[in-house]
Amino acid sequence: MQTQKIYSQFKTVALVGRSQTPGIGEPLIALAQTISKLGLAVVFEAQTAQEIGASGYPALLPDEIGTRADVAVVLGGDGTMLGIGRQLAPYGTPLIGINHGRLGFITDIPFKDMQEVVPQLLAGSFEREERMLLESRIMRDGEPIYHAVAFNDVVVNRSGFSGMAELRVNVDGRFMYNQRSDGLIVSTPTGSTAYALSSNGPILHPQLKGIVLVPIAPHALSNRPIVLPDDCKVSIQIVSGRDVNVNFDMQSFTSLELGDVIEVRRSRHTVTVLHPVGYSYYATLRKKLHWNEHPSLHDDPED
Amino acid sequence: MQTQKIYSQFKTVALVGRSQTPGIGEPLIALAQTISKLGLAVVFEAQTAQEIGASGYPALLPDEIGTRADVAVVLGGDGTMLGIGRQLAPYGTPLIGINHGRLGFITDIPFKDMQEVVPQLLAGSFEREERMLLESRIMRDGEPIYHAVAFNDVVVNRSGFSGMAELRVNVDGRFMYNQRSDGLIVSTPTGSTAYALSSNGPILHPQLKGIVLVPIAPHALSNRPIVLPDDCKVSIQIVSGRDVNVNFDMQSFTSLELGDVIEVRRSRHTVTVLHPVGYSYYATLRKKLHWNEHPSLHDDPED
Amino acid sequence: MQTQKIYSQFKTVALVGRSQTPGIGEPLIALAQTISKLGLAVVFEAQTAQEIGASGYPALLPDEIGTRADVAVVLGGDGTMLGIGRQLAPYGTPLIGINHGRLGFITDIPFKDMQEVVPQLLAGSFEREERMLLESRIMRDGEPIYHAVAFNDVVVNRSGFSGMAELRVNVDGRFMYNQRSDGLIVSTPTGSTAYALSSNGPILHPQLKGIVLVPIAPHALSNRPIVLPDDCKVSIQIVSGRDVNVNFDMQSFTSLELGDVIEVRRSRHTVTVLHPVGYSYYATLRKKLHWNEHPSLHDDPED
Amino acid sequence: MQTQKIYSQFKTVALVGRSQTPGIGEPLIALAQTISKLGLAVVFEAQTAQEIGASGYPALLPDEIGTRADVAVVLGGDGTMLGIGRQLAPYGTPLIGINHGRLGFITDIPFKDMQEVVPQLLAGSFEREERMLLESRIMRDGEPIYHAVAFNDVVVNRSGFSGMAELRVNVDGRFMYNQRSDGLIVSTPTGSTAYALSSNGPILHPQLKGIVLVPIAPHALSNRPIVLPDDCKVSIQIVSGRDVNVNFDMQSFTSLELGDVIEVRRSRHTVTVLHPVGYSYYATLRKKLHWNEHPSLHDDPED
Repeated sequence: MQTQKIYSQFKTVALVGRSQTPGIGEPLIALAQTISKLGLAVVFEAQTAQEIGASGYPALLPDEIGTRADVAVVLGGDGTMLGIGRQLAPYGTPLIGINHGRLGFITDIPFKDMQEVVPQLLAGSFEREERMLLESRIMRDGEPIYHAVAFNDVVVNRSGFSGMAELRVNVDGRFMYNQRSDGLIVSTPTGSTAYALSSNGPILHPQLKGIVLVPIAPHALSNRPIVLPDDCKVSIQIVSGRDVNVNFDMQSFTSLELGDVIEVRRSRHTVTVLHPVGYSYYATLRKKLHWNEHPSLHDDPED
Repeated sequence: MQTQKIYSQFKTVALVGRSQTPGIGEPLIALAQTISKLGLAVVFEAQTAQEIGASGYPALLPDEIGTRADVAVVLGGDGTMLGIGRQLAPYGTPLIGINHGRLGFITDIPFKDMQEVVPQLLAGSFEREERMLLESRIMRDGEPIYHAVAFNDVVVNRSGFSGMAELRVNVDGRFMYNQRSDGLIVSTPTGSTAYALSSNGPILHPQLKGIVLVPIAPHALSNRPIVLPDDCKVSIQIVSGRDVNVNFDMQSFTSLELGDVIEVRRSRHTVTVLHPVGYSYYATLRKKLHWNEHPSLHDDPED
Repeated sequence: MQTQKIYSQFKTVALVGRSQTPGIGEPLIALAQTISKLGLAVVFEAQTAQEIGASGYPALLPDEIGTRADVAVVLGGDGTMLGIGRQLAPYGTPLIGINHGRLGFITDIPFKDMQEVVPQLLAGSFEREERMLLESRIMRDGEPIYHAVAFNDVVVNRSGFSGMAELRVNVDGRFMYNQRSDGLIVSTPTGSTAYALSSNGPILHPQLKGIVLVPIAPHALSNRPIVLPDDCKVSIQIVSGRDVNVNFDMQSFTSLELGDVIEVRRSRHTVTVLHPVGYSYYATLRKKLHWNEHPSLHDDPED
Repeated sequence: MQTQKIYSQFKTVALVGRSQTPGIGEPLIALAQTISKLGLAVVFEAQTAQEIGASGYPALLPDEIGTRADVAVVLGGDGTMLGIGRQLAPYGTPLIGINHGRLGFITDIPFKDMQEVVPQLLAGSFEREERMLLESRIMRDGEPIYHAVAFNDVVVNRSGFSGMAELRVNVDGRFMYNQRSDGLIVSTPTGSTAYALSSNGPILHPQLKGIVLVPIAPHALSNRPIVLPDDCKVSIQIVSGRDVNVNFDMQSFTSLELGDVIEVRRSRHTVTVLHPVGYSYYATLRKKLHWNEHPSLHDDPED
């Protein structure tokens, strides 16, 4: 572990922990001390500071972190990264993700290694990756009534206790289809390994300049996932269906009406994630999807 | 068209029309007259009688049809058949299905042919088919709190605006899995071409003695559809998830609580459907699934 | 480990090992000694005897095992079971499967436990399971030219370097469809977790009285797997395609011609497998398909 | 139909017909006459000229067309376009596709309209679209032994009568996975609606800067299609499997050996396709995939 001051491009480091998570207080405070000893300023995200009782450091709201910190170290799961990532995106603050619990797709540094690895990243030894965001607005009678940003996906779906939804989808102003289904997922590459994958969508490499539309339980078996260039503007109109709602990274907007249009396009902001040197997206995929397991599904008949 | 009296095993014929369907009144009354002329008694389902103004015939509730009619002619779509089929199942009353609108999977006689074809069936020229039903009850703290019958499927699913559901599935008292997903479909062969098919389930031949469990957007990609013998008893416990509900042929029961168990097994009743001679299930599949279309998806590269 | 004579319904026990498998000689001979001490006669399958040098026991061909042994203990993988299972099926000899290497779907007793568990089964403590077989014949110009039995599947497919195949499928003499694809799998429940699963087929419970048709890379996206009652007779005619061949449990017949018909039906023979008491098919599924792994694919966004 | 000379950026127009296609001779010659009257030079592809007896025009080999013609009008199917497209790509000659028979994905002008529509395009009324090509080479012991270009896909697969293949896949020099399967498809957006779609791949919009890897019947159910940026370099090594071969737009190279590596990357050439004004890729999808058909798969249960 490094114990002396370093030169770093990051003068102020924000620490963010997953809410309501037992056992992360001490390690986070130890990490704060380690970073302080490196000669860097440490601030805490306000709710984290309160929950773990980190009293000796400034406690900042996310927007304040955006303006005052040069990097944010996030301890939690991918969900924690999604949340703070959306909030810091306008400020361009890069994120370092530590997974507490299971390995995450974007929280790729193991909890047990963080005291050692985070200083290395802060010292400049990292690989930088840009991740796309979506921005979405809901139009009613031609007027915007709601606006949201999504890191994973925008999901339009019927509630579980009503019939099928019918959605009219246009891309760049051109009619694509009327889809009868349980709903439609518009996903970033980051989101392609989340809910979209469960709905039979493809994996999109994080650097692919694309978004994917994945239908949920479509009526027509030929309504397959379609990957569009990331500069496309997708609009989804609620043609029919009761209790249709829209989720942005699983945050719901529930008061949609027939005729409402959900517009989705790439955000002009991105999220920057810093990985340890040697980071491999494919290694993460292998671990998360069990690709590296040698036990095979079925024995060869020659066995 | 036959105009003289016939001998028929069916002395009393019930006529049932889809509710709120313009344009079926006159044809149904014409059909009633045709059947009367054959020497058979005609009764109307009460709501149908009221909606179309069929005043000269007895108007019976479904249970009365069950006890008094020997066969029911149903005009509508598959949904109409599902509804009356469930109600008449305890009485064993066979059904003849006329499709109004699109071809149905079980309403296989075209509307335009009904005046000609129905008398042929009533005269004894038909192929008889038995269809399985499911019966289900909801257990809370060991006590049954709800009971329902399903012709297509029993669907446990989360509502659209909450997170994932976790379901613990036992079969014949043996633990199968804990499944994290949007939900789980338990489907009869009849239901296998409905919602289950949209969720990537297989088609089950109507005579297969089996039921299929189809996960909806499962977290684990290896949670594939599984077909069980029809004498299995499936129980699904709500382990976690907000606003989980259960639908029986799309009729919702919405006040499920954590720990509730949905038990599903084959009903001892079946639905008998009468088809014209020469009926082919495969022909219906070809038409409904466009298997008979010669235009191919992609040209041969040799083209 | 039991060391004294037992009463057993099995007087003569055959031992069968996977061919060319280092390290199974000594354990098999030790097992033979254990079984002899129980007072039962031991015979070896001839090739196994030769490969491991089991000189003190009769060496029998599979057909001789069928007539002289009361049970066969098979050490290897599922493939070994498929092979000996097909050969012993006409004699009804039950099988006990020991997996060497990975857990198998039907070789469910761990190698390390066999000295202890096999005597328990021989003493009568087992659960009996019947598995279906398929029998198939190839018809050319109305005459049978080849006959084979399959435990897993009959697979008609194009070779890798020709174009698409066109197959005309009839079931019980009724036309089902013309399918353009890479091929078609006809699978038993046992085979449903093998190649058919990789081609998007459903899992069939071993006791389901059904067979499944799974298209391989079908041209029409609506050509979905279909599960048929096990008394159906499937016939597949080669309509077009170069170098189409047919495999029975991966054993190839390669000289098919256009117009040839592959007929597939349930065999009148079955394979009996004996499992330890408490055997659970679902436990095997959970292990083989990683259903029991708690690490989830994607974190909850709440993480 | 235009009958007087036009100004056109295309001075010389090549006509190409699908080989061995009855009924295209007269229409092609009529089209040649129409184009000549517009004041443009017409040349015929040599084989086409010979087959249809087009004697009054220069007959050129594809390479000569590339150097001498400004545009090629192709009559046939998508396969015809694939072939001539690959040959003309180094010269940048744009293509106009007329479908003879079924609508194609890239031959989008109906045969019956060509006399009217082709002159409009030649007069400058068109929408230009660039399509990506793949280039591939086979490496053995570090040396290239074969080179090919593909418009749709590069497919590595086992032959139908051998066991599973094992492929080691690297992307940009980084290990992705060892895949046990029937094979692997590397597809362009153009190819994504061809063979890749049958193997459960997603649709890629033609303007997406991506390629998709689609496993064929993979052993591991989590081996899902993955979409990569189009500047990735994919290499596929044959680790095991008998009779593995590789196809480039269905043209086979069959003498692969274990250890051979198939490298695939985006070609520096593209194919330019000219469409009538108002062309919609989504309209083509709707027609080819039956998205525009209103008859639904299953009736609503409310029916």
